[in-house]
Amino acid sequence: MARLFAEYEVESPVGLERAARVIAGEQSCGTFMRLPGETDDLRSRAGANVEDVIVDEVRDKPSLPVRKPGTAYERGRIVLSWPLANMGPSLTNTLATVAGNLFELAEVSAIRLTDVTFPDAFADACPGPAFGVEGTQRLADVSDRPMIGTIIKPSVGLSPDETAALVQQLCDGGIDFIKDDELQANGPHCPLAERVRAVMDVINAHAEKTGKKVMYAFNITDEVDEMKRNADLVLAQGGTCLMVSLHSIGLAGLGAIRRHSQLPLHCHRNGWGLFQRSPDIGLSYRAWQKFWRLAGADHLHVNGLGNKFSESDDSVIDSARAVAEPMFCGKRASFAAMPVFSSGQTAVQIEPTYRAIGTTGFIYCGGGGIMGHPGGVAGGVESLRQAAEAAVKGISAADYARDHRELADALKVFGDRFG
Amino acid sequence: MARLFAEYEVESPVGLERAARVIAGEQSCGTFMRLPGETDDLRSRAGANVEDVIVDEVRDKPSLPVRKPGTAYERGRIVLSWPLANMGPSLTNTLATVAGNLFELAEVSAIRLTDVTFPDAFADACPGPAFGVEGTQRLADVSDRPMIGTIIKPSVGLSPDETAALVQQLCDGGIDFIKDDELQANGPHCPLAERVRAVMDVINAHAEKTGKKVMYAFNITDEVDEMKRNADLVLAQGGTCLMVSLHSIGLAGLGAIRRHSQLPLHCHRNGWGLFQRSPDIGLSYRAWQKFWRLAGADHLHVNGLGNKFSESDDSVIDSARAVAEPMFCGKRASFAAMPVFSSGQTAVQIEPTYRAIGTTGFIYCGGGGIMGHPGGVAGGVESLRQAAEAAVKGISAADYARDHRELADALKVFGDRFG
Repeated sequence: MARLFAEYEVESPVGLERAARVIAGEQSCGTFMRLPGETDDLRSRAGANVEDVIVDEVRDKPSLPVRKPGTAYERGRIVLSWPLANMGPSLTNTLATVAGNLFELAEVSAIRLTDVTFPDAFADACPGPAFGVEGTQRLADVSDRPMIGTIIKPSVGLSPDETAALVQQLCDGGIDFIKDDELQANGPHCPLAERVRAVMDVINAHAEKTGKKVMYAFNITDEVDEMKRNADLVLAQGGTCLMVSLHSIGLAGLGAIRRHSQLPLHCHRNGWGLFQRSPDIGLSYRAWQKFWRLAGADHLHVNGLGNKFSESDDSVIDSARAVAEPMFCGKRASFAAMPVFSSGQTAVQIEPTYRAIGTTGFIYCGGGGIMGHPGGVAGGVESLRQAAEAAVKGISAADYARDHRELADALKVFGDRFG
Repeated sequence: MARLFAEYEVESPVGLERAARVIAGEQSCGTFMRLPGETDDLRSRAGANVEDVIVDEVRDKPSLPVRKPGTAYERGRIVLSWPLANMGPSLTNTLATVAGNLFELAEVSAIRLTDVTFPDAFADACPGPAFGVEGTQRLADVSDRPMIGTIIKPSVGLSPDETAALVQQLCDGGIDFIKDDELQANGPHCPLAERVRAVMDVINAHAEKTGKKVMYAFNITDEVDEMKRNADLVLAQGGTCLMVSLHSIGLAGLGAIRRHSQLPLHCHRNGWGLFQRSPDIGLSYRAWQKFWRLAGADHLHVNGLGNKFSESDDSVIDSARAVAEPMFCGKRASFAAMPVFSSGQTAVQIEPTYRAIGTTGFIYCGGGGIMGHPGGVAGGVESLRQAAEAAVKGISAADYARDHRELADALKVFGDRFG
């Protein structure tokens, strides 16, 4: 029978080997004492196995507060496996298995889930991204360069008509992609239905005039029935993308909208810092993104180089590569999602981004980097397009800026934000 | 216009006052630079306010890794507020506002959301618990003492018929409440439909014979449509409770099942340690449980005294009190959920639990504490009932054990697990 594997970074006051056995027991058929029903046969059928234990170091203090202190704290890597028969190819129940009670165990003084390897049964059971990179590029009619995008800013406070007026400027400026801010969903000051109508009037008219249909990710985050209604509304008005806040709707919420909708799902990771910032508790992006891709995420946020947050550039690039890596062998191999770069992004960071991931299959969103450009919205968009052109042609931004004014302006204003 | 308030514990390399302003900006209408559309009028309409900043201490090292180090790290408490017009009375969008990107900001070297105060509009917009304490006690026909419960153990590995056989023993032993383990949902080795039929045959027959309908919380955690089908199945077989893993299904998932089902929702918090264990990143239980109560949680897990996990007893009791505190003034004041104690619970911890929370309105679950009792399942259940009787009568367990054999046996076997 197939097995599911999970890898953790663990620190323990009772030794890493013993901690691994406690976690395996707690997350399968054991509890704090051996019970009558826990027969050898049942254990061999349903028990989790400790596949590997590697001690990297020994610390003299616990990294997280512990109930019962030890004398030394072994830290390293463990790999566990579970029979698929325990949870079946279910994302929700796999999460409870590999990221459930184990975080609370007294036998660990640090624990991070660093990877999950799903057996092939998940490839058949899970819908995965309906569009991914190719589907998105086809809908947006952009493939030989990164998609240039932006976030409506100010994030909140604009009325539907004010939003539409900004969208008009962005369309005129040549943008490929626009998204609502994650703070802007269906609040009283900018109701979604009115925003969709006002924005799609602009986008549809622009498409009729120019042949270019700008992709707008409407933030439909809400209760399940409301999300479905919101998705239908966007589709009916000719919209081509839906945005959701993953941590707000949960795996079951994403699954429900994936099964219902006929548009790409732009997946925002706000709240991600809670899982990522501590070296001692949390999930790796590599592990986290696999769940959401299996559930149907088409676009996944990965932060950006030189971002306004606390994440290192190496981590950003690792994340962007992770979402494109195949998850299974064989015919449904890929389940690849499209990475979305944002957070303090300007014309300055496109070239190193493109160089690091080696493909044009990404969305690159500037907010302040577009709307704060001295040439206004049109200048901002043009500066990003020029920077992308330079990157794809293998010309440095500084060289390309010599005869590209908007790029030159951007480098002057934003140059100190990366490097 | 009504406002929503959130309180945080924050540490910052740039000063707490400045960090508070950055968070307020990032989570409302600001970005890393002031943009043309961000007018004074828009800021006063949609901006988040810094309501309070209290510096408690200054540290010389950051508690979490930071991108740009400071020279000193102020740590303390901040309170922010938002106009309700930004997000409306929406739980999913409130979560993105108060627990979104802010965790990633470079301006914080530690941040925990410690409380949220929801304006009254949420009392009208959110369903809240359909049953709560009184509804649960009515369905289970237990009110003058805590409900004595257990978790099916081994957690996974039993077939439907083996589960039903254990349920038979538990019913005969006088149990009030039984729950699936969170690891047992609808896996191939114990399909839910078969388990529901086998278990409810036992429970219904027992109810016909004795008049006592034991409450069984079936773990229906799954995708939304499957959860609804699972809930219908449990109801059709005469079941009286549904269990879900909150972090697996998400707020939208819980909202969907709340709106669909006609049974109490037993809400498991597995994965909670990820939010709770670090003093430097995460959410307080006080803040966390308000979201789930508003979304419809009837029962909420709070761990237990002397638990097998890492949480302190004070924290456990704070959590149990929090779920019963009224959330609003006025007629829909309470939204109270029923606290569920579990994790290494035996007859030993009932009395201090009862004393600390001062009410019988809780569910007390022993796993190993019942099935590992020397008198078997019946002895284990009886020992918990005796311990509860003693507690309610104000008699110490040791005294009561003099003429209550099962309690005496429990104190002998489990006595070193708490004290």
